[in-house]
Amino acid sequence: MPACPDLGPKPRLGYIDSLIDRAAERRNDHVGLAALMADPHSGVYVIGGDLIVTRRCGEGGDPLFTPAQARALGDVRETVFLGLVDGAGRFGFGIDQARAEALESREDLLVRDLRSIAVQGLVAHDHLATLAEAKALLAWHARHRFCPTCGTPSRPVQAGWRRDCPQCRAEHFPRTDPAVIMLTIGGDRCLLGRSHRFVQNFWSCLAGFVEPGESIEAAVRRETVEEVGVACGRVAYFASQPWPFPMSLMIGCHAEACTTEITIDPLELQEARWFDRDEVALMLTRRHPDGLVTPPSTSLAHHIIRAWVEGEAAPF
Amino acid sequence: MPACPDLGPKPRLGYIDSLIDRAAERRNDHVGLAALMADPHSGVYVIGGDLIVTRRCGEGGDPLFTPAQARALGDVRETVFLGLVDGAGRFGFGIDQARAEALESREDLLVRDLRSIAVQGLVAHDHLATLAEAKALLAWHARHRFCPTCGTPSRPVQAGWRRDCPQCRAEHFPRTDPAVIMLTIGGDRCLLGRSHRFVQNFWSCLAGFVEPGESIEAAVRRETVEEVGVACGRVAYFASQPWPFPMSLMIGCHAEACTTEITIDPLELQEARWFDRDEVALMLTRRHPDGLVTPPSTSLAHHIIRAWVEGEAAPF
Repeated sequence: MPACPDLGPKPRLGYIDSLIDRAAERRNDHVGLAALMADPHSGVYVIGGDLIVTRRCGEGGDPLFTPAQARALGDVRETVFLGLVDGAGRFGFGIDQARAEALESREDLLVRDLRSIAVQGLVAHDHLATLAEAKALLAWHARHRFCPTCGTPSRPVQAGWRRDCPQCRAEHFPRTDPAVIMLTIGGDRCLLGRSHRFVQNFWSCLAGFVEPGESIEAAVRRETVEEVGVACGRVAYFASQPWPFPMSLMIGCHAEACTTEITIDPLELQEARWFDRDEVALMLTRRHPDGLVTPPSTSLAHHIIRAWVEGEAAPF
Repeated sequence: MPACPDLGPKPRLGYIDSLIDRAAERRNDHVGLAALMADPHSGVYVIGGDLIVTRRCGEGGDPLFTPAQARALGDVRETVFLGLVDGAGRFGFGIDQARAEALESREDLLVRDLRSIAVQGLVAHDHLATLAEAKALLAWHARHRFCPTCGTPSRPVQAGWRRDCPQCRAEHFPRTDPAVIMLTIGGDRCLLGRSHRFVQNFWSCLAGFVEPGESIEAAVRRETVEEVGVACGRVAYFASQPWPFPMSLMIGCHAEACTTEITIDPLELQEARWFDRDEVALMLTRRHPDGLVTPPSTSLAHHIIRAWVEGEAAPF
């Protein structure tokens, strides 16, 4: 086997390594939470649908407001307690997406979607994990204001970590959708695909949701057969990442291909093909002669692909 | 390090290694599905809440009915298409739990909860994975008959794999809750706990749900601190298992303990303590002098614990 390309220092994955203590025991402490909410040392993220509101600060933004500043930005639809950072409270305020869009015209504010913020590094890296927590939780509230069991409007309790139904008494917890994202490896090559929604020249790992009654490993095999017709044998877990678009948990794997012929599902993919290590190294470092690229380093796909290029994937 | 005990051949984990082809492309093929539903070669699992209805067969049960036989067992609240086994259709029929309870009195039927069926080996092992698929999907329907976004009764589509809202047009997909289950390892010992709901002398891994905005590794560390006050460093993925009680995905890990002092959360746990390898080997093989036991081999906890005893866990 030829030597693996050296790609230099590893960039940081986004949305992980949160500095927060979620302090779940405080979620029912109404007096303590009210005190934190009145404390100007508490920090609040303000989110309207996909948009994060930040205070413009050089080329980027500071995403933390005091509770009073945050309230002044718009009607708060939902408040969630995220936890404590160095003893200071952290909250998420949900406002309407239309209100967040209206704030885009203010010169003192920078309003962007979280994906752009992460990829362009518009806020300090340490905020990404807490923003992921806030965004996923607020997205759940926005889509779950009614009890799915009986249809009655439900009420947030536990500082935003549960919704209770006053009618049928059902307790509903935040939803997180597990999804697999995998690099399929066949000999010295790996398989990358292009979804219809990808920008030109962008290639990535295959991915899909884990279905009911399915293990991670089974989901990797099923998705790979469904999307490209390639059968997989061994599956090796690599790493995981919260993915708040809107509320997934990405479970990253390498998979061993047992067949090589590709038959794409045209509803899911536009293209898929095998790539050798040197070509992928050029894509990762944005030096490919045809301009082909892989996902940015904030995403798990980048790290799954890179680990294989650098010879750190499971040796199938 | 002393030699690891040899516990003999590994038992099979439950609910995995499904023989089914989920054939997702057929979920919208109404004509094809109607033909399968009329075909006496198709097999139907009949489930009422927690209870699986089977045809008594020696000491155990046969969980497959023809569509006509299944319909005769009770009013079908929900029908889901599970996939194909050797070309034959497999469906799940949801009936009311009260109806399933009433069927317990019939001498030709064996009606039991899925956990008992798995642990006691009451059906052929290969059915467990398909029963997990059916039970998780039907449990989702039973609790999600209304659109959580607007409160309107929703309609099952895609052969039971989606519910659509006729009012706000939202599409809702089956829910699967990712949960971590971990064995914390400190030097030559591992940490086991007893939940309040466990039967006497039963000890197991700690476990908990992955929260929004959290990686698998972060969830392992947070749950371990919350439940026993032990800080963890490295986390190594071991294996996963669908856990249809009612609709979880168990993600099994080994974790490296960085501290040893245990402070239990009395709301979550009754007891927790460190065990050495030899004592755990006796618990796994049901030879412990005080009758202490670990979970049965159908559960992922058994295999996580056993891998550590046999020296196959990540070497922290």
